[in-house]
Amino acid sequence: MASPIRVTVWNEFRHEKVHEKVMKVYPEGIHGAIAQHLRHQDGLVVRTATLDEPEHGLTEEVLAETDVLTWWGHMAHREVKDEVVDRVYQRVLDGMGLIVLHSGHFSKIFKRLMGTTCDLKWREANEKERLWVVEPGHPIAEGIGEYIEIPHTEMYGERFDIPAPDTLVFVSWFEGGEVFRSGCCYRRNKGRIFYFRPGHETHPIYYQPEVLRVITNAVRWAALSPEAPKPVFGHHPNPLEEIKPI
Amino acid sequence: MASPIRVTVWNEFRHEKVHEKVMKVYPEGIHGAIAQHLRHQDGLVVRTATLDEPEHGLTEEVLAETDVLTWWGHMAHREVKDEVVDRVYQRVLDGMGLIVLHSGHFSKIFKRLMGTTCDLKWREANEKERLWVVEPGHPIAEGIGEYIEIPHTEMYGERFDIPAPDTLVFVSWFEGGEVFRSGCCYRRNKGRIFYFRPGHETHPIYYQPEVLRVITNAVRWAALSPEAPKPVFGHHPNPLEEIKPI
Amino acid sequence: MASPIRVTVWNEFRHEKVHEKVMKVYPEGIHGAIAQHLRHQDGLVVRTATLDEPEHGLTEEVLAETDVLTWWGHMAHREVKDEVVDRVYQRVLDGMGLIVLHSGHFSKIFKRLMGTTCDLKWREANEKERLWVVEPGHPIAEGIGEYIEIPHTEMYGERFDIPAPDTLVFVSWFEGGEVFRSGCCYRRNKGRIFYFRPGHETHPIYYQPEVLRVITNAVRWAALSPEAPKPVFGHHPNPLEEIKPI
Amino acid sequence: MASPIRVTVWNEFRHEKVHEKVMKVYPEGIHGAIAQHLRHQDGLVVRTATLDEPEHGLTEEVLAETDVLTWWGHMAHREVKDEVVDRVYQRVLDGMGLIVLHSGHFSKIFKRLMGTTCDLKWREANEKERLWVVEPGHPIAEGIGEYIEIPHTEMYGERFDIPAPDTLVFVSWFEGGEVFRSGCCYRRNKGRIFYFRPGHETHPIYYQPEVLRVITNAVRWAALSPEAPKPVFGHHPNPLEEIKPI
Repeated sequence: MASPIRVTVWNEFRHEKVHEKVMKVYPEGIHGAIAQHLRHQDGLVVRTATLDEPEHGLTEEVLAETDVLTWWGHMAHREVKDEVVDRVYQRVLDGMGLIVLHSGHFSKIFKRLMGTTCDLKWREANEKERLWVVEPGHPIAEGIGEYIEIPHTEMYGERFDIPAPDTLVFVSWFEGGEVFRSGCCYRRNKGRIFYFRPGHETHPIYYQPEVLRVITNAVRWAALSPEAPKPVFGHHPNPLEEIKPI
Repeated sequence: MASPIRVTVWNEFRHEKVHEKVMKVYPEGIHGAIAQHLRHQDGLVVRTATLDEPEHGLTEEVLAETDVLTWWGHMAHREVKDEVVDRVYQRVLDGMGLIVLHSGHFSKIFKRLMGTTCDLKWREANEKERLWVVEPGHPIAEGIGEYIEIPHTEMYGERFDIPAPDTLVFVSWFEGGEVFRSGCCYRRNKGRIFYFRPGHETHPIYYQPEVLRVITNAVRWAALSPEAPKPVFGHHPNPLEEIKPI
Repeated sequence: MASPIRVTVWNEFRHEKVHEKVMKVYPEGIHGAIAQHLRHQDGLVVRTATLDEPEHGLTEEVLAETDVLTWWGHMAHREVKDEVVDRVYQRVLDGMGLIVLHSGHFSKIFKRLMGTTCDLKWREANEKERLWVVEPGHPIAEGIGEYIEIPHTEMYGERFDIPAPDTLVFVSWFEGGEVFRSGCCYRRNKGRIFYFRPGHETHPIYYQPEVLRVITNAVRWAALSPEAPKPVFGHHPNPLEEIKPI
Repeated sequence: MASPIRVTVWNEFRHEKVHEKVMKVYPEGIHGAIAQHLRHQDGLVVRTATLDEPEHGLTEEVLAETDVLTWWGHMAHREVKDEVVDRVYQRVLDGMGLIVLHSGHFSKIFKRLMGTTCDLKWREANEKERLWVVEPGHPIAEGIGEYIEIPHTEMYGERFDIPAPDTLVFVSWFEGGEVFRSGCCYRRNKGRIFYFRPGHETHPIYYQPEVLRVITNAVRWAALSPEAPKPVFGHHPNPLEEIKPI
């Protein structure tokens, strides 16, 4: 039997403490809603971590025991300590999966892994979004129909300043006239990264079954086998006796 | 529990009948060697099919019950009937995985799916090959070290006339001075395709554990979930009453 | 000084002959409108060819003197002779650029080069389209703003059954709720291919300056230098004396 | 007539000052050798800049007047000031081309744009390298044969920790048994980046005509048109009156 996938659901967890409207939508926090769903899936072991815990809840020990990390942040990206970002960054390159959600596009960790500004257009107008599946054979799209419809959401529009995804799984349509690459897969060294657009602090999007299904699929896709090859870097001695100085 | 993956191992099975040297290396045929290995892997159900069977062993029924097809051919690519190629092509687009091995690069089915000639350089000089892992986080590379070394093999060299792979997993080095993109992933509609270079009728390469491990990994990677989205094509009626003739 | 780029603008040229409405929009044919624009651009030499000419106007001689071919077809894809398709196919692989327009997605030549069905959703509802630039650093997007807006057009929607583009330059938004990968670059051997969605026989889209600008940009991007490397295929003799039979 | 492309050739310029052997090979510095060649190409205007100049020679003014920057560094990557790296980074995202040469793989600017460690294997054994063209239709390969052979060079081997290139143009073979992705194209926002492996302080590689041809091709490829689209980010007001609070 395969080992369980150990998931850490990370949330900034600030909006929920200060905005009554957000508290009502996510009384256990955004992390609570996501973790609650993941805990009911076969083969996942789930914990949570938040910004205001010591070391943001992301100690060396926690990361060493994390196969896949999900990330939601918005108003306090700057408060995430650089040393914790360094630690998460190194773990991703070493093979930890990373699922970046919605406003996490502007997190330090995502910008560092992408190498770009990750900037975009946005608007809060409660408009309709449809995430169309453009790669129906990808495991992250399993269980989804032709598209996911979100009735009321914040708009994110192109130009989204990211590297072209290794695989583009979803493209969003917005009522107001924009499109967005909303489901994007990347490999960075041994780590698998998935950016997924849906989610917002005042819309109950992390209760929508299709959205949760995609997050679950992404967790499974992003989990690396312990048998993955271990790249070796640095000086590599000369195997051929016949190579001589010129 | 997940359903088993149903694999059909297809082989041209001609060299083995006419060349004594090949018979000695593969007394059960190349398909026999590969199927023998796959049958010992968890969760795989394996059958074989060969060119000289009726409909090349690839009837509608067989294909309907095949999740992943592996393909080896060389001297008789032209004898594969176009109607069978059409059938396999359609099944791949509908989601059947396809693993194309070695000289299968020139098969009708691979050329059709690629849209290019799939031509390359070659030489039979029993030279050494090393397949370097360039994407260590990819599931097809699981269980492999930094590279696979094949002591004696036919050379295949660039320029290999394929579309740039969606993911390039292995790059080969050859003793005589060439390189080759030797592990290439593609998505075509819902089907996942993997081209894997190793293998030859007179070298015992399909007994080498790392080669068999990659084929097994590729079978698992290429198997589509029954829950994959079903794309809809064609006329799509107007959902918006307000769109009127100009 | 660089040599001029020799462009052949190919058009099925049937709608224009049988539908009065189309005649009014394109009195010189769709090819006439496109060629008229290209003839005014620096460094382009332009001719046209149509289905009902002998060999569809695409003789060996014409193709040998064509650096970039643009393709528009719709109602008579099946009438394009396979031998002409073979000829165009070979020229593309040898380095002729190919710009496939709108309903050309279902042409024999595009399907053959893609290796997929190239199917899609469609609807004729005179709705608005916006082609958003998702790769602003690509030469095909030069001279365009953030998007191109087409006020009244046919809808094409995902899932579009194409291989993931090597570079995705435009993504379309449609009023009725769909998205579409509407500007897609591919390399196939030495040939550069660009699929561009806009255009329709009853809408005056090939008079819209931004659309014509993109077609012009694409022609320049797709033209191969005569100094491009010439790949060599086939048997490649052994350069190393020390490689011996096992 | 097109405006000239303004190139700045940057070099660390330290080895040349302290190692007699390097001085002999590059008496005018590595930047001198590269700039000398580029100055003889049509349509290029060339200047140089080095580490020990004020602001490393890369002031706001210089960068504002640079269309393409080439970068060679090795022993003093850490001495490049972060504020200069920030400035170059911003200019690349805004559209300045960047050609990173050889040991520049470990420069701050390349690692920042890639988002990975850019680590690799290496060995100094004066061995032979062949850079095979795997994408013969790409403009960077113009004027090259099937491969470039470098008789004596340092080895760089996979695994090279970079994101999968948007386009892979060259793959290297090394005498000692390794391969390397040695010509890699990337787009990052509006900037085009090309990593090119050849070059070393003690081998006269920057005098080899094919290597210089590739650098020249890359400069032309990386130069952005002043007419490139200008992406707009940030708040994007609501164009639809009918979108109302829920």
